[in-house]
Amino acid sequence: MSDVPAVSLPHLVARRRAGRMLEAPFYTDPGIFRADLDLIFGRHWIFVGVEPDIAEPGDVMTVNIGDNAILITRDDDGAIHAMHNVCRHRAARLVSTETATVGRLVCPYHAWTYGLDGALLHADHMGDDFDPACHGLRKIHVRSLEGLIFVCLAETPPADFDDMARAVAPYIAPHEVANCKIAHQIDLIEEGNWKLTMENNRECYHCALNHPELTTSIFEYGFGFETDETDPVRVAQRRNYDAMVERSCAAWDRAGFPSTEIGNLDDMVSGYRIGRMPMDRDGESQTLDTRVACRKLLGRATEKRLGDLSFHTQPNSWHHFMSDHIVSFAVLPLGPDRTLLRTKWLVHRDAIEGVDYDLENLIRVWRETNIQDGNLVGLAQAGAASGGYVPGPYSPQTEGQVEQFVNWYIRRMAAGLA
Amino acid sequence: MSDVPAVSLPHLVARRRAGRMLEAPFYTDPGIFRADLDLIFGRHWIFVGVEPDIAEPGDVMTVNIGDNAILITRDDDGAIHAMHNVCRHRAARLVSTETATVGRLVCPYHAWTYGLDGALLHADHMGDDFDPACHGLRKIHVRSLEGLIFVCLAETPPADFDDMARAVAPYIAPHEVANCKIAHQIDLIEEGNWKLTMENNRECYHCALNHPELTTSIFEYGFGFETDETDPVRVAQRRNYDAMVERSCAAWDRAGFPSTEIGNLDDMVSGYRIGRMPMDRDGESQTLDTRVACRKLLGRATEKRLGDLSFHTQPNSWHHFMSDHIVSFAVLPLGPDRTLLRTKWLVHRDAIEGVDYDLENLIRVWRETNIQDGNLVGLAQAGAASGGYVPGPYSPQTEGQVEQFVNWYIRRMAAGLA
Amino acid sequence: MSDVPAVSLPHLVARRRAGRMLEAPFYTDPGIFRADLDLIFGRHWIFVGVEPDIAEPGDVMTVNIGDNAILITRDDDGAIHAMHNVCRHRAARLVSTETATVGRLVCPYHAWTYGLDGALLHADHMGDDFDPACHGLRKIHVRSLEGLIFVCLAETPPADFDDMARAVAPYIAPHEVANCKIAHQIDLIEEGNWKLTMENNRECYHCALNHPELTTSIFEYGFGFETDETDPVRVAQRRNYDAMVERSCAAWDRAGFPSTEIGNLDDMVSGYRIGRMPMDRDGESQTLDTRVACRKLLGRATEKRLGDLSFHTQPNSWHHFMSDHIVSFAVLPLGPDRTLLRTKWLVHRDAIEGVDYDLENLIRVWRETNIQDGNLVGLAQAGAASGGYVPGPYSPQTEGQVEQFVNWYIRRMAAGLA
Repeated sequence: MSDVPAVSLPHLVARRRAGRMLEAPFYTDPGIFRADLDLIFGRHWIFVGVEPDIAEPGDVMTVNIGDNAILITRDDDGAIHAMHNVCRHRAARLVSTETATVGRLVCPYHAWTYGLDGALLHADHMGDDFDPACHGLRKIHVRSLEGLIFVCLAETPPADFDDMARAVAPYIAPHEVANCKIAHQIDLIEEGNWKLTMENNRECYHCALNHPELTTSIFEYGFGFETDETDPVRVAQRRNYDAMVERSCAAWDRAGFPSTEIGNLDDMVSGYRIGRMPMDRDGESQTLDTRVACRKLLGRATEKRLGDLSFHTQPNSWHHFMSDHIVSFAVLPLGPDRTLLRTKWLVHRDAIEGVDYDLENLIRVWRETNIQDGNLVGLAQAGAASGGYVPGPYSPQTEGQVEQFVNWYIRRMAAGLA
Repeated sequence: MSDVPAVSLPHLVARRRAGRMLEAPFYTDPGIFRADLDLIFGRHWIFVGVEPDIAEPGDVMTVNIGDNAILITRDDDGAIHAMHNVCRHRAARLVSTETATVGRLVCPYHAWTYGLDGALLHADHMGDDFDPACHGLRKIHVRSLEGLIFVCLAETPPADFDDMARAVAPYIAPHEVANCKIAHQIDLIEEGNWKLTMENNRECYHCALNHPELTTSIFEYGFGFETDETDPVRVAQRRNYDAMVERSCAAWDRAGFPSTEIGNLDDMVSGYRIGRMPMDRDGESQTLDTRVACRKLLGRATEKRLGDLSFHTQPNSWHHFMSDHIVSFAVLPLGPDRTLLRTKWLVHRDAIEGVDYDLENLIRVWRETNIQDGNLVGLAQAGAASGGYVPGPYSPQTEGQVEQFVNWYIRRMAAGLA
Repeated sequence: MSDVPAVSLPHLVARRRAGRMLEAPFYTDPGIFRADLDLIFGRHWIFVGVEPDIAEPGDVMTVNIGDNAILITRDDDGAIHAMHNVCRHRAARLVSTETATVGRLVCPYHAWTYGLDGALLHADHMGDDFDPACHGLRKIHVRSLEGLIFVCLAETPPADFDDMARAVAPYIAPHEVANCKIAHQIDLIEEGNWKLTMENNRECYHCALNHPELTTSIFEYGFGFETDETDPVRVAQRRNYDAMVERSCAAWDRAGFPSTEIGNLDDMVSGYRIGRMPMDRDGESQTLDTRVACRKLLGRATEKRLGDLSFHTQPNSWHHFMSDHIVSFAVLPLGPDRTLLRTKWLVHRDAIEGVDYDLENLIRVWRETNIQDGNLVGLAQAGAASGGYVPGPYSPQTEGQVEQFVNWYIRRMAAGLA
């Protein structure tokens, strides 16, 4: 007669069986969902957007992480700030739109007025004892990693973000995120727990059956695929792929576009993985014809065939950097069985739609792939919420990064509960 | 500050007052709803459909009992299987439609492939240590009672189902359910607790005021109606009715259509009641003009006037078998205050719509009656959920079977909690 | 892993910090919402409607207070009754429409029949042992305060309602509510906790920025506005206002329309405040041009310029009485974050729409003001439910009555929990 699972969360965390999905309450229980928000999304660096979201002074974007309504602003000096989107007087949400451009943040309720850094500048009728300095907006840690914006709600954020940032900066910097514009954004609500969205992203075992558009350019071998050594066709394919990777990477490294896969997806607090992979069909970009979608190449790119720089972060993002465009994904939990997948397509800031790129061609592959993945996540949620569910085994050959994600999650939950 | 009722479920069960409705939490409390799913729907034989739902090898139907998503299949040998609709790999729901016809069950996520009996036949990339025999779909007990399909989610189902089956088979068999087809199905969502749907079904005190279509053919006396001995009009009507029953039943028994009411709705674990009753207006069938809706008679029927064989099972079904068609009702709980009433109209498998029967004429009486009952259930739920509700008394003359249903429920809950 | 706040309700009540908003759970927690329904709405006099809602014998109105479905009737002798809208037999809601006119109350399920006073008059088939006198509808305390109808769900209602009634009757009586008709009603659902709706109503600090229509006629000084003595413009405005009040009130008192502000919004169980204020722009009524909306003046009114008699009650109503019309507001909680604001516009019962008044002109100011307030309440709810929320300070100059409302609430909760 209560929603509390019969088994406590610490016990569920402790008894997690390696190599398998989590037990059902991790995907369905409202209490564990709140623990996820608190211990995972409340204590780690969360990817929320990109610098082009707030390109100019006075630009403001809003984002919700669980019940935290967050404002991210660029001030007149170009600095980025993050703070709670809650007036310190009578609690009104200050900015209700996704983006805005303002001189100051004026509360719609009683006109309390804050600077872009959150300082309270003006409040009427508050009497002599009132100290504006004690009533600024509550700040949140924010970092730009070469144009990718991460926030951390904890008082003391994980320190190893700096290690990750140092390691991945050389890979990302040449694509110059800050010199991009957002050509398109799609918010897709998936009917599943956020961890199922992440698990789905971390393997390509399902690609062949489900992603006709994506598999035009993508190699499944690029996603931790261990070849079955008893299958000669697979072994030969794999050998060709490995040779291609070696050739391509050497060339990219010489051109200033690092490629070697690095990272640590399960032991680090700020778990990540980055690496550049070649494309199938001698491809240039993740489009239906594998040719670049945008004529204006990004940053320091001088040739179209730069492969796919794939960057994954725990707990909530992945990104594909190509010569001509970037696709960036943020996973934001909405409920135990609802997740927002926010996808942004970035092109060079000077690229003109209809001239330099065709929008439909730019977004088609990942728009369709996301819809396909969303359906799969919904099917998995339906099953995990069913009476007959028992955690199944991950493939040792193709689902190693899924296992790493779950390992990371379990370690971070254990640490949070300790 | 919590949803847990002040009084515990075992205490509420123990203090149930005979002859009255249940206390409010039985109709409204989410915790008791979960206990209903566990102790009633998880441990008893639940009616879910009819053999014509899966007439041919490869036919599959899906049904949900609480959070149990269930597959029911007919294999190539004609055998019926029931299993959980959850892939053993990554939990995806295997079949998302209500019905399907397949050679094998292929998971849409990673193409794990199962036979119609649930055995895992194929799974890629799982390595040498993987044993398919340990990863078949989880089975559920299933039985066909002369074409009516019941499942039981418990490991050890109630044994007295066999007693019921033996007793009722001679009544049902002559109608030959397996030689029928489903002419129509309506899923009606009632805004009330499933027990209110059942209580509503178990009396006809409300018929005169609410069911103009149904009362054309139905006698209220057939539903446990005890006549007020002080009302001479009623006594006379009742005497006529009893005489008619005696005459009709003798004839039906001779013709091989048993009629005597038998059953036990409260003491048996697999509680039931069956009996054949004559119809008003010298009627043949539950239609608006009381004439048969279908020219092709069912099974061994050679005459149209076979009355109404009414079969009730605890906790979730009732059925009307007539000479020309069958109407079959399954009650499936969706939430504390939402219930699915699934109604199927069956006619002879060779009957042709528009030639042998007019669909509107076939379904009209019960479609309208269900809508009327659904509204009444909604009104009762609204009242039971209201602050001023106190359990009212059942009529000793007309609501005896309601009391039997509630007695059965209380006994089974007490047994489950013990 | 549970919805129960870490801090208990009694502790949250005890530690409430004066001069500030409440802590977040008071606006968001489902358990505290239920406590509000029990201890506040279940134990105090709640405003639900006006006598013109049930002008004639046989008139019935329904209203919901939390999960209490309530019938209010006028019997053939003109007496007003309130009772639970639940049949004593099988729990059916008796009346499902907002209003009805009936001779008797007949249950739609089995035709149990009650008088307008709730007595059970008829029930079929119930046997000899059944006593109708024990099965009347359950009664609720009801009072008409000069035409304003209040109910109390408690067995023993707060006794000081009589003190309030005695004090305010001379103010309200001359407007003769019972001789009015309801020209219009709007039910607005606000996406916020009911206390935020009340807090919003109890100050006009937000009016200048948000209510262009209302501020045409209303003075912010009329709502507990303390002038900043260091601001000479404000001091002068205030002095003019005070002089105007003195002049107007003397005249109104002589004419039999009392004006002096009286009441006690925080110490009394039946907290209230009443007082008559002049209007801006030499106004007559709360319309866009500040002229009367209805040519037929109310009750004993002989002149149009009678100001605005403003009557506030804890926990859930406010009213504006003018020479030509009355606007009456009831706040009814629907959920932790949803509140019904029911607004009725009353004019003289003989006034004819299109002749004596233009409906759009009558309702425009408060219809727009309510929508504006509803949006503000929604913003405050969004903020109070956000992670970064901390209770902010009330203005000592303009939000004194908000503080009084919260003080009253905390005292009544403390008393209820004791």
